[in-house]
Amino acid sequence: MTRKEIYHRILQKQSYLCIGLDSDIERIPRHLLSEQDPILAFNKAIIDATKDLCVAYKPNIAFYESLGARGWQTLEKTLEYIPDTHFTIADAKRGDIGNTSRRYASAFFEQMDFDSITIAPYMGEDSVSPFLSFENKWVILLALTSNPGSSNFQKQHLQGHQELYQLVLTEAQKWASPEQLMFVVGATHPEHFAIIRELAPDNFYLVPGVGAQGGDLEAISRYGFNDQVGLLVNSSRGIIYAGTGEDFAEEARKAASHLQLQMAKLLEERFGQ
Amino acid sequence: MTRKEIYHRILQKQSYLCIGLDSDIERIPRHLLSEQDPILAFNKAIIDATKDLCVAYKPNIAFYESLGARGWQTLEKTLEYIPDTHFTIADAKRGDIGNTSRRYASAFFEQMDFDSITIAPYMGEDSVSPFLSFENKWVILLALTSNPGSSNFQKQHLQGHQELYQLVLTEAQKWASPEQLMFVVGATHPEHFAIIRELAPDNFYLVPGVGAQGGDLEAISRYGFNDQVGLLVNSSRGIIYAGTGEDFAEEARKAASHLQLQMAKLLEERFGQ
Repeated sequence: MTRKEIYHRILQKQSYLCIGLDSDIERIPRHLLSEQDPILAFNKAIIDATKDLCVAYKPNIAFYESLGARGWQTLEKTLEYIPDTHFTIADAKRGDIGNTSRRYASAFFEQMDFDSITIAPYMGEDSVSPFLSFENKWVILLALTSNPGSSNFQKQHLQGHQELYQLVLTEAQKWASPEQLMFVVGATHPEHFAIIRELAPDNFYLVPGVGAQGGDLEAISRYGFNDQVGLLVNSSRGIIYAGTGEDFAEEARKAASHLQLQMAKLLEERFGQ
Repeated sequence: MTRKEIYHRILQKQSYLCIGLDSDIERIPRHLLSEQDPILAFNKAIIDATKDLCVAYKPNIAFYESLGARGWQTLEKTLEYIPDTHFTIADAKRGDIGNTSRRYASAFFEQMDFDSITIAPYMGEDSVSPFLSFENKWVILLALTSNPGSSNFQKQHLQGHQELYQLVLTEAQKWASPEQLMFVVGATHPEHFAIIRELAPDNFYLVPGVGAQGGDLEAISRYGFNDQVGLLVNSSRGIIYAGTGEDFAEEARKAASHLQLQMAKLLEERFGQ
């Protein structure tokens, strides 16, 4: 999916919402546990109930890996179930030396057919470049994450006063164009969005941390928008666990709809259609 | 396995060799492809041929993930086949926000029973701490990796002149004792080992990059040893692909033996038994 296509789908749906399928066997509604594949049943119901409200789905791989080989099958089937119209993100935060990163790329781009994968930048260019050799596939590089630990290293000042995550933003743009490279920027840092948008004007950002982690949609949108919207805002727990009973999918839809309506308003203000 | 136990096994075997099971379906000997599970057959033969020469095995998870659910089963069976006497490392380079890292910890420490896992530090303390809540399990944190990209961020100078990887070494020691925390330090940086050993005197280092990547065993051992040896030196491709024919296990044994003999000599010089 190209950047332009993502942009057009956002305008069409009046939504830049990404829904995180962090589907945890210990948190899904109890009545699903009698299903042959409870997580798959949960994911399908969530997708059915929300697909008109979002433009992307992001399974976090940890929740599938923790179920072993069976979880991997659930992930494959979930990906097949997501409509082709939606951008898919393997939230895997991988990254290894070149010959190994090629294998991770093969896992997520060939063995499965994700549109994109999240990558940790610590190991540098040759750990990222193998993912960039796939046409129409995206790298979403961690820049400034939404968790408290982002202050340990990402916000360290380098000589020359720049913070580490800012170097990640500028350095990585030498490796790939905005047609293949997005950045993860946590919604818990709205005060940083203006400078981040200056450093990476054309890239899309994947923004986790709205909802359960407390990020402010309005602030990050106002500072984070670029001419092609440039934002995919993710909510996981706030949507998929909005309900805990038999009406969980309906409750998830309400939570997603609540965000989508705010997004429509913010898009209207900026892109006025 | 405790630090003391690792130390004693090293002295007993006169080896601090870790063998990397980066077992690639495209590189294993062709005659194995008729086996029901070629990678498992390969791993078993390598383990049988080398287990008296090494103290640890390190499957790199990428090679198993790239085979999907089937690869995950191969990984589980490989782990079961490694003798209990050997330290096992899931080379996964994971790291995510707290509730997600707990799932990765569950995947590798509960669903499977690895002794340790490699973790990327970029997301900071709360991405690492969930792995530390498991007794007798180790975190092996990336500090200075062996690949060219280590210069992009890891070697950046921070304000106060320290390099980023040095801050990782000192900061992470606030999170865990040397009984639970090792560091990855690539063999391709022997000139850094003296200062690294000063910054993290008691921790074990997992040292990749000897062999295929060109690291120098003698230099890193002289500068990297501490009183409890403190080094696990990994070789992957240099051992497991030493041969390509039917005698591949024998050739792997020769390559492992070559390293083990050098290690015995270096241990003798330093610990003189």
